[in-house]
Amino acid sequence: MESKFFIKDSKDFIAKKVELKGWVYNKRSSGSIAFLQLRDGTGFIQGVVVKNEVSPTTFETARNLTLESSVIITGLIREDKRAPSGYEMSIVNIKTLQIPKEEYPLGKKDHGPDFLLNNRHLWLRSKRQWAIQRVRHAIIYAIYSHLEEEGFIKIDAPILTPSAAEGTTTLFPVPYLPAWSDEELDKEEITLKSQNAVAYLSQSGQLYLEAAIAAHGKVFDFGPTFRAEKSKTRRHLSEFWMMDAEAAFVEHEENMATQEKLIKAILKAVLDKCPEELNILERDTTILKNILDKKFPIINHQEAIKLAQKENLSIGQRDDLGAEAETLISNKFDTPVFIQKYPKEIKAFYMKADPKDSSRVLNNDLLAPEGFGEIIGGSQREDNLEKLTAWMKELNMNLKDYEWYLDLRRFGSIPHSGFGAGLERLVAWICKLEHVRESIPFPRMLDRFTP
Amino acid sequence: MESKFFIKDSKDFIAKKVELKGWVYNKRSSGSIAFLQLRDGTGFIQGVVVKNEVSPTTFETARNLTLESSVIITGLIREDKRAPSGYEMSIVNIKTLQIPKEEYPLGKKDHGPDFLLNNRHLWLRSKRQWAIQRVRHAIIYAIYSHLEEEGFIKIDAPILTPSAAEGTTTLFPVPYLPAWSDEELDKEEITLKSQNAVAYLSQSGQLYLEAAIAAHGKVFDFGPTFRAEKSKTRRHLSEFWMMDAEAAFVEHEENMATQEKLIKAILKAVLDKCPEELNILERDTTILKNILDKKFPIINHQEAIKLAQKENLSIGQRDDLGAEAETLISNKFDTPVFIQKYPKEIKAFYMKADPKDSSRVLNNDLLAPEGFGEIIGGSQREDNLEKLTAWMKELNMNLKDYEWYLDLRRFGSIPHSGFGAGLERLVAWICKLEHVRESIPFPRMLDRFTP
Repeated sequence: MESKFFIKDSKDFIAKKVELKGWVYNKRSSGSIAFLQLRDGTGFIQGVVVKNEVSPTTFETARNLTLESSVIITGLIREDKRAPSGYEMSIVNIKTLQIPKEEYPLGKKDHGPDFLLNNRHLWLRSKRQWAIQRVRHAIIYAIYSHLEEEGFIKIDAPILTPSAAEGTTTLFPVPYLPAWSDEELDKEEITLKSQNAVAYLSQSGQLYLEAAIAAHGKVFDFGPTFRAEKSKTRRHLSEFWMMDAEAAFVEHEENMATQEKLIKAILKAVLDKCPEELNILERDTTILKNILDKKFPIINHQEAIKLAQKENLSIGQRDDLGAEAETLISNKFDTPVFIQKYPKEIKAFYMKADPKDSSRVLNNDLLAPEGFGEIIGGSQREDNLEKLTAWMKELNMNLKDYEWYLDLRRFGSIPHSGFGAGLERLVAWICKLEHVRESIPFPRMLDRFTP
Repeated sequence: MESKFFIKDSKDFIAKKVELKGWVYNKRSSGSIAFLQLRDGTGFIQGVVVKNEVSPTTFETARNLTLESSVIITGLIREDKRAPSGYEMSIVNIKTLQIPKEEYPLGKKDHGPDFLLNNRHLWLRSKRQWAIQRVRHAIIYAIYSHLEEEGFIKIDAPILTPSAAEGTTTLFPVPYLPAWSDEELDKEEITLKSQNAVAYLSQSGQLYLEAAIAAHGKVFDFGPTFRAEKSKTRRHLSEFWMMDAEAAFVEHEENMATQEKLIKAILKAVLDKCPEELNILERDTTILKNILDKKFPIINHQEAIKLAQKENLSIGQRDDLGAEAETLISNKFDTPVFIQKYPKEIKAFYMKADPKDSSRVLNNDLLAPEGFGEIIGGSQREDNLEKLTAWMKELNMNLKDYEWYLDLRRFGSIPHSGFGAGLERLVAWICKLEHVRESIPFPRMLDRFTP
C-alpha cells in the first residue's frame, strides 16, 4: 500500500507528487491564478493553480470551489519561506467530492457567541478552534504518559454516585430506574431500597481513588464531572473533565512536588508538540518556557489574603480566596503559585488538619499565572478515624452515607494525599483563552446542552 | 532524597536494605518464625521474621499483626526461586501504622457476590481484583499510546446530550435544571426552550466524532457511556467505558484493518506488561500470543447465520446475531473474527449501504474468541445527504433533532468510517472473566449504584 500523504509531513515530500484529501477553507483567485487554502486535519497548506500549467477543466474546477468543498488534490510540494507553514503545493489535478449547495454559514464575517455555539459542529473546523483542541489533546496525552512513567494506575471512578464529595446545591440528580413499569421492576426483583432511588452525577472521583490506593498505591482517574452551575460566567461549565490523582504514603509537601512535576511535564509536551498551534493562538511561549526551570513558590493562605488586601480587595483573614483574589494574586507571579494551609472550616471535610495549627488544613490550591487562577486543588487526607468522624459530626454529615469511606480508615489506614486538576482550566491557561467555553469540544452550560 | 523502594523493583535491590511501606494481606507463624505476605500496590512479596534474628519486640509485633495492618518494614531483599515473585524479604524491623480494631471483613472464607460488591472498596485489594485492574489499566494505556502513534486526536464527546444515537428505552434522563427556583431561573434569563428540559446520558460519542473529523481527520473519544439496562446478566452494566474512533477518507475495509491493528497493539501491551497479573488470573497466554501473528478472518453475516443454524440455533437469515449466536461462532475461532455486512434494517440509521447489495450495510462486529462475543462494532457511515435523510424518514426519525448532524453531509461531506470498543468487554476477554462486573472498579448495575 502506498503511504498516505498528510500536510504535517510536507517536509518529507519536497518536490514529490502527493495526493491531498481534505477541505477548502479559504480561496482567492485572479484571471490566471487561484490560491486554495487547504486543510486535511493535520495542518494547513496553500495550493496554487496556475491557468496555463493545468488543463482548462482543472482551472475551472478550482474557480468553482467554495468554502468547505471536499476535494482530493494532486500536486507537488515545494518549500516556500513566505508560506506560514513553510510549504506550498503546485496543484496538478483536482477531484471534487462535494461542493456545498448552500453557502457555508461560518464565512468570513464575525459571529456572536450564540451563533458560534449553535454551530459548534462546524465552528470546530476554524483554525483557532483546531489549534485549541490540538493543545487540549496534547495536555491529555501528556497527563497519561507522565502518570504512566510515575507508576500511577488508572482507576475509573463511577459517574453515577449515591452521594456528593462536595456541596449539594450543584448536583445533577438522575432517577436510577427510569421509565420502568412496576411489573418490570417486580419481575427483576429489584433490591434497591427504594424504587424512587436517585443517583447523582459525580463531582469528583477522589473518595473512590482513596479506596483504590490500598490496592494500587498510586492511582488516578480522568473523566467527566458535573456541576449544575447557576452562574453564567466565563469560567463555568456544567460538564467538564477532571483528573484526580491519589497516592499512599505521600504527605502534603510531596503532594505539591508531584503537582509541580505534572504541570511541568504538561507544559513541556505542549511546547514540544504544538508550536504551530500556539502560534495560531498568538500565545507568547516565552512566558510558558520560563516556567520550566523555575521552582513554584509556596505561600500560606494568610499571606495570600494579605496580598489581596493590599490590592484593596475586601476579604477576611479566614475567607476562601475566590476568583477575584486568585486573579489578583496570580497576576503577581510569572509561574504557577501554591497557596497552602487554608482555614479548616472553609474546606472539604476530608482534609487533614495541620499538626502545627489545627485550625488550618494541609491543603493547597495551585494558581496559574497571568490571572488565570486555580488549576489544581489538593490536600493530605485525614487518615485518623476518630478525628475524621468527629469533624464530620461537627459538620452535621450523615456518617451512614460514608460507612464505606470510613472503612478505609478502619482497615490499614495510612498517610495519603491527592489532588484534582481541571482540564478546561489548563487548556484555557495554556492557550490563554478569554472564555472556558472554547476549551471543550461541545460545551454544556447553564442554558445549553446542544448540539 | 533517597529513592523509594517498591516491590516491583525487587530485582534491583538484591542484598540491599530497603524500607517497604504497605499492608499485610496474609500471615502465618509458628513458634520461632513468622511469614508475612506483604503488598505495596506495585506487587506482592513474602517477608520472613526469624525469632532469634530480631529483637523480641519486633517478633512480638510481627505476631500481633492482623490482616490489612498497615506497616513500614525494614528488611533485606533476597532472591528465592521458590517464592512466586522470585524474591523474599528478611525482616529486620517493623513499624506498625495501624492494626485494625475489627476483623477484616474479607477474610479467608468464600463470600457471595452481593457481599463482595457491597464491599467493593475493600474487595479491590484482593490479588485477583488487583490483577484485573492492572490489566484494565494496561489496556487503557495501550489504546492511548497506539492512537497517539496513529495520529488520532482525542475529542471528548459530551455526556449530557439532547438525543440518543441508539434506541431510547435504555436512556437515563437527567432534568437539566435541577432544584432551581423559578426566581433563580428568571434572574438568569434561561434561554432553554423549556424549563423542564431533559438531557440524556450519552450512549455513544460517535455522532460528535463525525463532526470533529472535518477539523482533525482522525479522532477518538474514551469515556463513560450509560444504559439503563433492564437485564441482570453477566454481560450487562449500566455504566461502562467506551472508546470510539472515527476517521475521514477511510472506508469499510481500512476501518477493519484499523480495528485489527488496535486489538493487536492492546494484546501485545498486556502480554508485555502484565505477565504476573495474567499468571494470578491463571490466564492461558499462549492463546493470546497466537493471535498476534494471525490475520483476523472476515465472514459475512449470511455465513455467520449459517454457522449458528448448523449448531441448531433457531435464527433467521436477516436476524441480528445476539449473544448466543456470537458465543457459538466465536467458539469456532482462535482469533477475533469480523462479521460484516448485516441486514440494513436491523442496524443503526447512519450506516452506509453496501453498493453491491443495498439491503445490507458496510458494517462489522468484531467477536473475541473463546465464546466472548462482541468487543467492537464499526461501520462506514452514510455520507450522502439524500440517501441518509430518505432512510431516516423511513425509520420515522425526527430530522429536526439531527439538523447539526446533517450539516456534516451538507458542508464538505466525505467517505468516513469508525468503530466503538467496549473497555469492560476487552478486560473480560483478556482476563477471561466469568462476569463483566469484575472488569470495572465500581460496577453499576440494575440494582446497584453503591458504594
